[in-house]
Amino acid sequence: MERVAGAVTEIRALLFDVFGTVVDWRSGVLREAAPFLARHAAPGADAGAFADAWRARYAPSMEEVRSGRRPFVRLDVLHRENLFSVLRDFGVDLSRVPEPELADLNLCWHRLDPWPDAVGGLTRMKTKYIVAPLSNGNIILMIDMAKRAGLPWDAILGAEVAQAYKPTPQAYLRTAEILALAPAQVCMVAAHPSDLAAARACGLRTAYVPRPLEHGPDKAADAEKPGEWDFVADDFGALAGLLGC
Amino acid sequence: MERVAGAVTEIRALLFDVFGTVVDWRSGVLREAAPFLARHAAPGADAGAFADAWRARYAPSMEEVRSGRRPFVRLDVLHRENLFSVLRDFGVDLSRVPEPELADLNLCWHRLDPWPDAVGGLTRMKTKYIVAPLSNGNIILMIDMAKRAGLPWDAILGAEVAQAYKPTPQAYLRTAEILALAPAQVCMVAAHPSDLAAARACGLRTAYVPRPLEHGPDKAADAEKPGEWDFVADDFGALAGLLGC
Repeated sequence: MERVAGAVTEIRALLFDVFGTVVDWRSGVLREAAPFLARHAAPGADAGAFADAWRARYAPSMEEVRSGRRPFVRLDVLHRENLFSVLRDFGVDLSRVPEPELADLNLCWHRLDPWPDAVGGLTRMKTKYIVAPLSNGNIILMIDMAKRAGLPWDAILGAEVAQAYKPTPQAYLRTAEILALAPAQVCMVAAHPSDLAAARACGLRTAYVPRPLEHGPDKAADAEKPGEWDFVADDFGALAGLLGC
Repeated sequence: MERVAGAVTEIRALLFDVFGTVVDWRSGVLREAAPFLARHAAPGADAGAFADAWRARYAPSMEEVRSGRRPFVRLDVLHRENLFSVLRDFGVDLSRVPEPELADLNLCWHRLDPWPDAVGGLTRMKTKYIVAPLSNGNIILMIDMAKRAGLPWDAILGAEVAQAYKPTPQAYLRTAEILALAPAQVCMVAAHPSDLAAARACGLRTAYVPRPLEHGPDKAADAEKPGEWDFVADDFGALAGLLGC
């Protein structure tokens, strides 16, 4: 655990990365993709590989927006485009899949389960801080997820509100500005050093919560460099404790 | 009570006007203005008249934005400009008031109390619908108010997210679009027929909850025209019942 002197008293809002940090995206996508692939793909199609392939298209598709080559569109739109590409890669004949099934599978990102400590930790942190997602996921995705999982957000912030995808500085700075806070009064919580590094470059505080199972049981988590972040905690309960909740 | 056949089953989200409909703005402003005026205005300054005068500047200041004469700025900014004008009208020498006192008085809108039925009714409605403010108040104003009062919003929507003030059609239509809903799947709840009429013109469902005390004990509430709205209820508990919660 690292702590910058005075950091706790100054922080007013905690902003959370969501996919991987609050919820287990891989298990959730796998769970819904498996029966879909059993119906529509060749026998033996690997739902875990499918989840990884869908997720792998996430960053490049957002880069089209971040670079300015494409106007802002919400993540549900990018997810759907990427879904179609990945299904083709898995040999699925899209013309034979009923549209409602495609639309429903695309919404599996709205139905991801939180890590076991997430709801309890957020509930504690909410007593003392504003808690909100700062995710690249769009607003209705975050609302559906929160209602299903019981995530007690104070507001839904993030890329769609800021009209900028992380790690664009605008995503962090515009969100702090909406909260009428200085960047140093805001703490970004994430399982991903790249997200935290971008937040820190904008003047935000940072809290690292590693999620070693994010990429499945066989993959390594992102490596932590000790001392880089204001707070390091094994889960949201421990983070709540570090933050005085 | 009026009900359009089939309306309940189709509705997915309830969007609430806030000032007057969810919270009692006049009593809250009066409560904080009274000691301020006692310190800084001439003896006998009427805090109720002050609250009314501040509120009266609300619509004209937004009209500057709605008309396009001014880029979108959030309500905290308009409130502050209007506060300064009204204080001058009340004979307050602004140069003699410490800035923190002015900033704090401006935030009294973040500290308004809900009507007695609001939290209970919203809590019931949240079990079946997405509940969110569609207020002209800005995001941090709504967050601060909700945390203090216990308003259980699923998200903070409204003018700042839509970048348009009600009753501009964009405020309603952009919010429905963010929710990935057709306008008819969204119900606007308000104490103000003008707000409901604008929402209805955009295709939203409408629920009228009169708040006869909004303008104080001596003023009449907005008159209802029976049959104009999909739902009419005396308070949020009754509305929850009409909506099957």
